[in-house]
Amino acid sequence: MRISYEEMHKELTRILIKHGLERERAVLSARLFADASRDGIYSHGLNRFSAFVRAIELGDVKVDAKPTLDADLGVIERWNGNRGPGNLNAYACMQRAIALAHEHTFGVVGLKNTNHWMRPGNYGLMAAEAGCIGILWTNTLPNMPPWGGQDAKLGNNPIVFAIPNGEDPVLLDIAMSMFAYGKLESYARQGRELPVDGGFDKEQRLTRDPAAILETQQALPFGFWKGSGLALALDLVGAAISGGRTTCEVGELPRETEVSQVFMAIDLRRMPDSEAYAKKVKTTLQDLQTAIPRDPQHPVTYPGQNMMRVRRDNLLHGIPAEEAIWNAVKEM
Amino acid sequence: MRISYEEMHKELTRILIKHGLERERAVLSARLFADASRDGIYSHGLNRFSAFVRAIELGDVKVDAKPTLDADLGVIERWNGNRGPGNLNAYACMQRAIALAHEHTFGVVGLKNTNHWMRPGNYGLMAAEAGCIGILWTNTLPNMPPWGGQDAKLGNNPIVFAIPNGEDPVLLDIAMSMFAYGKLESYARQGRELPVDGGFDKEQRLTRDPAAILETQQALPFGFWKGSGLALALDLVGAAISGGRTTCEVGELPRETEVSQVFMAIDLRRMPDSEAYAKKVKTTLQDLQTAIPRDPQHPVTYPGQNMMRVRRDNLLHGIPAEEAIWNAVKEM
Repeated sequence: MRISYEEMHKELTRILIKHGLERERAVLSARLFADASRDGIYSHGLNRFSAFVRAIELGDVKVDAKPTLDADLGVIERWNGNRGPGNLNAYACMQRAIALAHEHTFGVVGLKNTNHWMRPGNYGLMAAEAGCIGILWTNTLPNMPPWGGQDAKLGNNPIVFAIPNGEDPVLLDIAMSMFAYGKLESYARQGRELPVDGGFDKEQRLTRDPAAILETQQALPFGFWKGSGLALALDLVGAAISGGRTTCEVGELPRETEVSQVFMAIDLRRMPDSEAYAKKVKTTLQDLQTAIPRDPQHPVTYPGQNMMRVRRDNLLHGIPAEEAIWNAVKEM
Repeated sequence: MRISYEEMHKELTRILIKHGLERERAVLSARLFADASRDGIYSHGLNRFSAFVRAIELGDVKVDAKPTLDADLGVIERWNGNRGPGNLNAYACMQRAIALAHEHTFGVVGLKNTNHWMRPGNYGLMAAEAGCIGILWTNTLPNMPPWGGQDAKLGNNPIVFAIPNGEDPVLLDIAMSMFAYGKLESYARQGRELPVDGGFDKEQRLTRDPAAILETQQALPFGFWKGSGLALALDLVGAAISGGRTTCEVGELPRETEVSQVFMAIDLRRMPDSEAYAKKVKTTLQDLQTAIPRDPQHPVTYPGQNMMRVRRDNLLHGIPAEEAIWNAVKEM
């Protein structure tokens, strides 16, 4: 089934108000969920909404909490998320990084003590729409074994790069695990094999079987030792900038909360060569697409290139939704 | 054979002076080569020295050129490398980023029109020794097919993260290809198979055979689509900050030169919680090492952890060198 963007937004707003969010904040939070589904990131849109509501009910997400300024270190600002809704905190901090970039060309905001930000691409797109490069990442609870180890010591710490390019920005949104657990579940439900190794089975062999990885919870860092090192580096840099918990310290809590995030913005319009740069981006992306494809049916694309097509389609025909999930939301 | 650090440094200095570098610059450049070999990065130390001298002879590297300030954008400075020696340019720009961080907590330097920086870890360690987190990357000529493509459209754009930790900093130094071409050559010379897939053979199948990849020059981005996207993002962000060429534009030149680099430093000593952070880093690294190892002979380590052991050993017993390479250098 397909749900119109407006209907989805209205339903989610209603439920958030019912769970105690101020109207304006409920409207924004619901919009961020609907935007994710609109852009095809269903796992972090509608499909994640009930988990968010559960986190409110458990007290992990404090509906009234707003981010407060902890320290002004010039180009870096540190904000405390006060365990408020992760998407509202992230939205506020990306906005602040953009404002700093408008003032100083480069803006950096560290956010500690926050909750899962849902779809990070939303905040990258905010930067791109404001004429800024956006670079942002989060840590998570320990959910990925380091390379060479069997037990989860690292977070899969997703990072986003957004680069303005007219209506078709570059949007790279990658976790440090080869596949997110949500993706593994979706492959398992469909009985499909992963396209490449995604983790370890209980005999500690690399496998493409999503169910076997869900059983061991041993997801593979992407690029083996490289993604493992990157997850550690992002965690330590994020904790330095935000003053917040590392993944190891998030792991001391009963459930994932009080995570640390970084939001960087670079204002391209303040650059002396902003027009030349915009052309350079176009040329580079066009050149990439002239690569000889491995599969003639699949020309090479840049990250985010297909998203705008999905968005236009979903706005026109409605957003695809699983009937059970939509019905459950309507009952909330 | 093993060469003492002092002897290696003296020999390399002599040759650089002979090729026109001012004494002081020759001493520093030679030191950066010797430091790489001292730390076990032989491929970018002594073993790369003759290629550097060839680049001087070809006129790609201009021995007298020094970096000049192009634009002061507040926290970002843009420098022009004027095609000077890549390691001297990178050294100067990392120093400048550290000075900016000492002043503003965060410092960013973009460097355009420079040459291969040899071992990037050197500049990361400079930051760590100055009490700063260092984040730096470069682009390269097109040398890696994007995910889904067969011909080189991306650079393998190495990135470094350095995080201070007393005598044992974290030092992550990774290219966006699963294996550097130098590494593939070394495996091929030894007739060894790669531990994981490293690229495509001429039937366009993924392979662990280093010789087959050297034949097609189709190195694999690490983590498939993820490393491919990251290589593109780093290239575009680097060109934005430096005002320099993207990989695609470097590819218009007959050989690799005029590359673009970024140097970031974050001064931890200016942070209100610098002591607490230092403890947090120690705790996180210790926790990582308690992971249950896949192979009981190989406990989990953090990036850079083994380097200091190699350094101490090489300073004590001399730096391992291939006899043919050392003899050729002595003849130069």
